[in-house]
Amino acid sequence: MNKVLNHKSLKQTDQVVFNNFISKYSNKEIVVVQGLGFVGSVMSLVCANAINGSYAVIGVEVSTNRGKKITKDLNNGIFPLVAEDPKIDQLFEKSIEKGNFFATTDTDAYKVADIIIVDINLDVEKENHNSGALIDYNVDLSPFKKAIVSIGDNCKEDALILVETTVPPGTCVEVVKPLIHNCLRKRNLPLDKIKIGHSYERVMPGPGYIDSIQNFYRVYSGIDEKSAEAVESFLHTIIRTDEYPLTRLGNTNATEMAKVLENSYRAMNIALMVEWSRFAEEAGVDLYEVVDAIRLRPTHANLMYPGIGVGGYCLTKDALLASWARQNLIGKSEPLSQSEIAININDQMPRFAFEFLQKYYPNLEESKILLLGVSYRGDVDDTRYSPVEKLYDYLLESGAKINFHDPYVNYWDEKSLVIDQDLSTHLSNLPDIVIISTAHTLYKNKKTIDALLTLPSAFIYDTLGLLSADQINILKQNHIVKVLGRGDL
Amino acid sequence: MNKVLNHKSLKQTDQVVFNNFISKYSNKEIVVVQGLGFVGSVMSLVCANAINGSYAVIGVEVSTNRGKKITKDLNNGIFPLVAEDPKIDQLFEKSIEKGNFFATTDTDAYKVADIIIVDINLDVEKENHNSGALIDYNVDLSPFKKAIVSIGDNCKEDALILVETTVPPGTCVEVVKPLIHNCLRKRNLPLDKIKIGHSYERVMPGPGYIDSIQNFYRVYSGIDEKSAEAVESFLHTIIRTDEYPLTRLGNTNATEMAKVLENSYRAMNIALMVEWSRFAEEAGVDLYEVVDAIRLRPTHANLMYPGIGVGGYCLTKDALLASWARQNLIGKSEPLSQSEIAININDQMPRFAFEFLQKYYPNLEESKILLLGVSYRGDVDDTRYSPVEKLYDYLLESGAKINFHDPYVNYWDEKSLVIDQDLSTHLSNLPDIVIISTAHTLYKNKKTIDALLTLPSAFIYDTLGLLSADQINILKQNHIVKVLGRGDL
Repeated sequence: MNKVLNHKSLKQTDQVVFNNFISKYSNKEIVVVQGLGFVGSVMSLVCANAINGSYAVIGVEVSTNRGKKITKDLNNGIFPLVAEDPKIDQLFEKSIEKGNFFATTDTDAYKVADIIIVDINLDVEKENHNSGALIDYNVDLSPFKKAIVSIGDNCKEDALILVETTVPPGTCVEVVKPLIHNCLRKRNLPLDKIKIGHSYERVMPGPGYIDSIQNFYRVYSGIDEKSAEAVESFLHTIIRTDEYPLTRLGNTNATEMAKVLENSYRAMNIALMVEWSRFAEEAGVDLYEVVDAIRLRPTHANLMYPGIGVGGYCLTKDALLASWARQNLIGKSEPLSQSEIAININDQMPRFAFEFLQKYYPNLEESKILLLGVSYRGDVDDTRYSPVEKLYDYLLESGAKINFHDPYVNYWDEKSLVIDQDLSTHLSNLPDIVIISTAHTLYKNKKTIDALLTLPSAFIYDTLGLLSADQINILKQNHIVKVLGRGDL
Repeated sequence: MNKVLNHKSLKQTDQVVFNNFISKYSNKEIVVVQGLGFVGSVMSLVCANAINGSYAVIGVEVSTNRGKKITKDLNNGIFPLVAEDPKIDQLFEKSIEKGNFFATTDTDAYKVADIIIVDINLDVEKENHNSGALIDYNVDLSPFKKAIVSIGDNCKEDALILVETTVPPGTCVEVVKPLIHNCLRKRNLPLDKIKIGHSYERVMPGPGYIDSIQNFYRVYSGIDEKSAEAVESFLHTIIRTDEYPLTRLGNTNATEMAKVLENSYRAMNIALMVEWSRFAEEAGVDLYEVVDAIRLRPTHANLMYPGIGVGGYCLTKDALLASWARQNLIGKSEPLSQSEIAININDQMPRFAFEFLQKYYPNLEESKILLLGVSYRGDVDDTRYSPVEKLYDYLLESGAKINFHDPYVNYWDEKSLVIDQDLSTHLSNLPDIVIISTAHTLYKNKKTIDALLTLPSAFIYDTLGLLSADQINILKQNHIVKVLGRGDL
């Protein structure tokens, strides 16, 4: 059903590969995934290894140097991210064996797509203030709109466009649909065949990366009945819906809202702990034991633990997409104050983590600090919006000499820093202060604790409650140990 | 071990009863419960029917008209509250049979107590503003302090004083202990024998009233080791700790903090839904279906449903006790902004509920309104801080003619209104608007729906999502039906 393209903008070799791919899979449905980041790259694998279907998958990246590198790497068998989930390698190898996954920066891919999955970013620029006040931020939809237009300019008239990107509620109806219709109109194509749906991903980088797509609940919707049905049919092919039934919501506003509400809820509950950690420290209370006691109540099981703050791509901004949408896209009324305040409080957590250290170790100048972990989450290589970034800035400003370790990150993109991944080298520098800043399993291994124990007296600062009570007692033989949110140690 | 008192301030008959009671139980431990409200009255029953122990129980009320009525009623076999839990009547009858529960307004009861449980109120005065701004409020500890002094002036030197009242974190150490020590000093008694502990109740009025004490997790602590142990021993006698193990926390600040954190968490999560309900209404989204979809995630199972707001004694103020304590008792630093904002937003919910009605029914003047339910929670008679109170005020101001029904409340204390409990009488007045304002089971019974269906066309307004989709469809045959937080009906 898909014709081979004679495409001039591709280099001859690329075009040959592309044409071969298309002709090889002319009898299969073609899924095009737009955006090969932390969601799209893994989503591509899941589609190329569909549970109940058989797709040829083309991943499309923007034609930047970065985009070109990602697609070239993928076509050469190099996956763009490192994670603890062995299923990623397994699925990638299978797709290489089958040869049904191909990556390109060419928008012609949309011409052959039966299903186009939008997995691009939609960023929020923000500026924090050191108070509980509302946050300054800006949502710029133009890159997102441009990506949608690149689909509308090329797609088949009856394609399914499935938006997975986290968008401000109202986007599918107020932005995507008019843009796509406009493109189709220009191309003299009918408007009644195109299908537009929304089904947000709940991807969780880490050991359960693939499962967070294949084995998890999904919410979906369409701008009309046929769109919703097309989304439903597709999702049944990639998700184990026997165990994790799909939920259809009434309209795309509802699914868009569900995603940002999920993450507002999460961000707000983290923010609650930011404030209460400091209260607990002041009151000589171990907030961890308090939270454990409260979580015994099923109605309170989602209470969060203290920590260094929130990072990653979603929780640091989704609540703002919601509040922005309420003011600018639908509703057009007030901000969602609690959601905005939550983001602002969380963004201040690295400062509180720094101040906690300063209280016990007032003169940081010239002190040798070893930061254990720079990614935003344990056992992943994702450093996007990691709270460690801001903590690093504060430490740097204090005049400390800082080293880093991270078993998953050898180059810290945001800081343009190479990271030596040999922990023993870092320890042989005899740091005065060791800060556990990411919950990597490695840092609570017996081997690491033993290695820390061999250091001359140091200040060990656990910002995440990673160490067990036993480990703390062991380390206290030699060191001062302090835990954020524990007032009584 | 307890001596019979020769007490002059009691009337002769009362004194005889009191003396008889004491001498009858001279070989038992005596528990005195201070405060016979929604917690203390039920706690008294639980102690009088201890699972693993045998106590004589004296309930003490303040010597006001209300206090005297409660104690007199109790001694005459009339329990001070009506609830759906049949276990209350059962335990009350058992205690009458055994004769081991006696109520009095005389503080001499403390003289014979081995264990004194503090279950009095600690109120917060507050004034709301119609914005997300911090709330004006005041915590006045003086009635609480007076109650503690009445114990200190009378108690045995080795009594266990167990505070169950929700108090600002820091209270046991900063307030109770110094006051009690001061009293003991004045009485020339030693300070090292008295035991002071804290173990907050998690009483939930309604069908599981007794179970919320006997069959539920408990957190406890003491101001010292012997106090914590005494609390532990006592709790083992009244709670099924085999199924619901006790949790001891490091100090009384921690348990005091746990309680107000629990309720801050809850209040904040309700407040989140207050804001998002309005967003959902604006966006044509059914927030109930969105919440259902999100709650499938175990990490999001505590997400709340929309509703008319929060009522009752705890959730409307506990977060403020926390914030007050941080500013005034321990910590002495900033307010807990999210906790304060949550209370303020929740307090505005009745206004939003009113505005929702106004949007669909702009001219309320002279309209006949029937309010179904005035208590703050389904299937209980508790009207304290019910959000219906404020909704009523707004409706009254609009010039509507308002009737009430509540199957559990025949006299609405806060409004000094008698409530006719015959629903059919109210319906025969042919209301223009029926507002479901409390989630009483009665209101979703088939009989009630059938009765509503016989009305001439009315506006039915469900402020709590009590009606099922089917019931809404049935009612729509005859009526306009709107649900708070459902934008698409």
